[in-house]
Amino acid sequence: MRMVDLIAKKRDGKALTKEEIEWIIRGYTNGDIPDYQMSALAMAIYFRGMTEEETAALTMAMVHSGEMLDLSSIRGVKVDKHSTGGVGDTTTLVLGPLVASVGVPVAKMSGRGLGHTGGTIDKLESVPGFHVEISKDEFIRLVNVNRIAIIGQTGDLTPADKKLYALRDVTATVNSIPLIASSIMSKKIAAGADAIVLDVKTGAGAFMKELDEARRLARAMVDIGKRVGRRTMAVISDMSQPLGYAVGNALEVKEAIATLKGDGPHDLTELCLTLGSHMVYLAEKAPSLDEARRLLEEAIRSGAAIAAFKTLLAAQGGDASVVDDLDKLPKAAYTSTVTAAADGYVAEMAADDIGTAAMWLGAGRAKKEDTIDLAVGIVLHKKIGDRVQKGEALATIHSNRPDVLDVKEKIEAAIQLSPQPVARPPLIYETIV
Amino acid sequence: MRMVDLIAKKRDGKALTKEEIEWIIRGYTNGDIPDYQMSALAMAIYFRGMTEEETAALTMAMVHSGEMLDLSSIRGVKVDKHSTGGVGDTTTLVLGPLVASVGVPVAKMSGRGLGHTGGTIDKLESVPGFHVEISKDEFIRLVNVNRIAIIGQTGDLTPADKKLYALRDVTATVNSIPLIASSIMSKKIAAGADAIVLDVKTGAGAFMKELDEARRLARAMVDIGKRVGRRTMAVISDMSQPLGYAVGNALEVKEAIATLKGDGPHDLTELCLTLGSHMVYLAEKAPSLDEARRLLEEAIRSGAAIAAFKTLLAAQGGDASVVDDLDKLPKAAYTSTVTAAADGYVAEMAADDIGTAAMWLGAGRAKKEDTIDLAVGIVLHKKIGDRVQKGEALATIHSNRPDVLDVKEKIEAAIQLSPQPVARPPLIYETIV
Repeated sequence: MRMVDLIAKKRDGKALTKEEIEWIIRGYTNGDIPDYQMSALAMAIYFRGMTEEETAALTMAMVHSGEMLDLSSIRGVKVDKHSTGGVGDTTTLVLGPLVASVGVPVAKMSGRGLGHTGGTIDKLESVPGFHVEISKDEFIRLVNVNRIAIIGQTGDLTPADKKLYALRDVTATVNSIPLIASSIMSKKIAAGADAIVLDVKTGAGAFMKELDEARRLARAMVDIGKRVGRRTMAVISDMSQPLGYAVGNALEVKEAIATLKGDGPHDLTELCLTLGSHMVYLAEKAPSLDEARRLLEEAIRSGAAIAAFKTLLAAQGGDASVVDDLDKLPKAAYTSTVTAAADGYVAEMAADDIGTAAMWLGAGRAKKEDTIDLAVGIVLHKKIGDRVQKGEALATIHSNRPDVLDVKEKIEAAIQLSPQPVARPPLIYETIV
Repeated sequence: MRMVDLIAKKRDGKALTKEEIEWIIRGYTNGDIPDYQMSALAMAIYFRGMTEEETAALTMAMVHSGEMLDLSSIRGVKVDKHSTGGVGDTTTLVLGPLVASVGVPVAKMSGRGLGHTGGTIDKLESVPGFHVEISKDEFIRLVNVNRIAIIGQTGDLTPADKKLYALRDVTATVNSIPLIASSIMSKKIAAGADAIVLDVKTGAGAFMKELDEARRLARAMVDIGKRVGRRTMAVISDMSQPLGYAVGNALEVKEAIATLKGDGPHDLTELCLTLGSHMVYLAEKAPSLDEARRLLEEAIRSGAAIAAFKTLLAAQGGDASVVDDLDKLPKAAYTSTVTAAADGYVAEMAADDIGTAAMWLGAGRAKKEDTIDLAVGIVLHKKIGDRVQKGEALATIHSNRPDVLDVKEKIEAAIQLSPQPVARPPLIYETIV
């Protein structure tokens, strides 16, 4: 086999075989195939796409390019969830304890990553003492005992995906459905998932701005799951405005706690119940989605959900009392309010701009080396469609610097009012199974 | 400027500006832009093409990436000719002396290159003593005195093209009209051409198998010429069968000598007169193509053309007496005949396969390091459409090894006979100005 011939084959719109794809990924991982051939292939894939067979083969080739997390000693069906980016997305913090509380094993490997706010691990580190530096054996023991544990990125999982992603990032080949789908799915499968629930965001704050694109990505990932024997479902949810009200690390932890207690924002609660129902159903802890949802609602009402969160925190060194005394979480030195300039209705709340404003405060990382300020962020007080009066608070800025004029202006520009009533966007567009 | 944004721009079908193209070629030449970004861009260009403006800008950016040959001290309009590959293409050997004999200055920089036979310099080295190791000053002096001289590749001309071509070769991005056109034109312009005549081959033995592709390439090159102030004309000629009868180095020199004396094969003579007329016309040595052709026919008839060839040889150390005593040229040790298996008409004479057979004999280079046997090759005795009788000679193999069964079989497979009469293919499809 010669790489140049395989590039030409894809360039001409033909499908690569499983063997060819495995040969490419093996060669690329071990350095036999240079970046300049891989980037030409990625661009050819950008233009020509991949069949379902090819995408599944690429996914599994990347899974097999490195280690896999072996979760076989954990009892039950391991279900993982993945949300495709977004702003103020607190679903992971809520869903872990929520589904664990009804018996679903949650063996979560999570990252820090780049973005408007930190990753799930950063957020949880707002809780004094909480850490993810536990051994793999301890991780598995905790999941078997408590049904939930969280560990940082461990081992050399999907090195081909890491290498390819870094290359795509600098060669304008990120935005290709089969490449995105295989990247996400390979990481979930290598991390030991038996079944996968996907939360594909769409709207201004999402990577997939258009519903149709989101639908194609969701479809591609569900297809991969089917072909490689991992039951997969996808929900397409709105990210035209931030999910919930909080954008920041400790701020989102607070919101997650409220949600697990039954006092969370409507949209965050509803999305968690929907995604959670799919997880419970795929984990075979309920015979139907309706029954799964009923179990989760009951877990919130009974206190089992918030108890599971406390158990998680305590088991990994965290001070579980923060749940009952939120003042123990990091707090910013200053707060400042963004108010409505006129009477009207919220017409736009550009999620990406609000996320950028939070990053300016120090809530997220632009580069790997950046440190995060866990206390800072933005709390919104309105949602699209809400009526507001002139002078009413639209958002509160939590900062550790006195002057936040830049952030204020960014938020003011991100929130548009209309004199006429505005329809609320749907929260969930569709479910793909 | 960031390369990733420019790749995305081209990927999305937008045109790059002149400044952007210059920035890319400068960065690529000096190593700031890595191969993996350049190959992604090349693949995006493969799919999206380039506008005339972009192609012209790319050409000139490559011209300016290195040195240029300064021919300004040569009197007259310097016209260069380029043929796009092909088999048994002796046009350069004939055209140089032919147009020089009517006063057109021929300052030819030529190469050795890879292929079925050697390059023009290899072929001329069949003449004992002939060499191209002359200084640039001597080269220019010879052109001013004799109207013709040939020099090897000298100086660091179009380094960007060299680097990009090597990259395209291994990333399946060779076959892109704007990239091919800019590559050819940049080399001609850097070598000092004021005007350019292009001989774009089409058919089985050519790079452009289809007439329509050849037409698009010719059009693209003529457009570049117009935009960068080099008068350019293109002729699309047939390469479904070898041009002339000889395929080999010394064998082609013999055929060129015959043609300059007026005894050459009809097709080679005719194509040389057509291309030569364009060269003479662009060099302003005749007011029309018809008048130019008349001058060239007269030069052959009067002996001026063959005299110019003798002058060229003698001026660069060659034994000009070979022209009158062809036995002084290298001769192969063995000859062997391929005969017709039945009565019929020649229906096919696959130029590429005959070229490959010549390479097997040692007439060409597959790799840079290969040495060439100047004596060996193939002489055909028929053309498509010719009537043949069973047992009649179709081709003579000139070899320096006794056993040529492999070559014989290759040629037998390349030449197809038909019991019915076969139409002769046109020699020249069209002219693009």
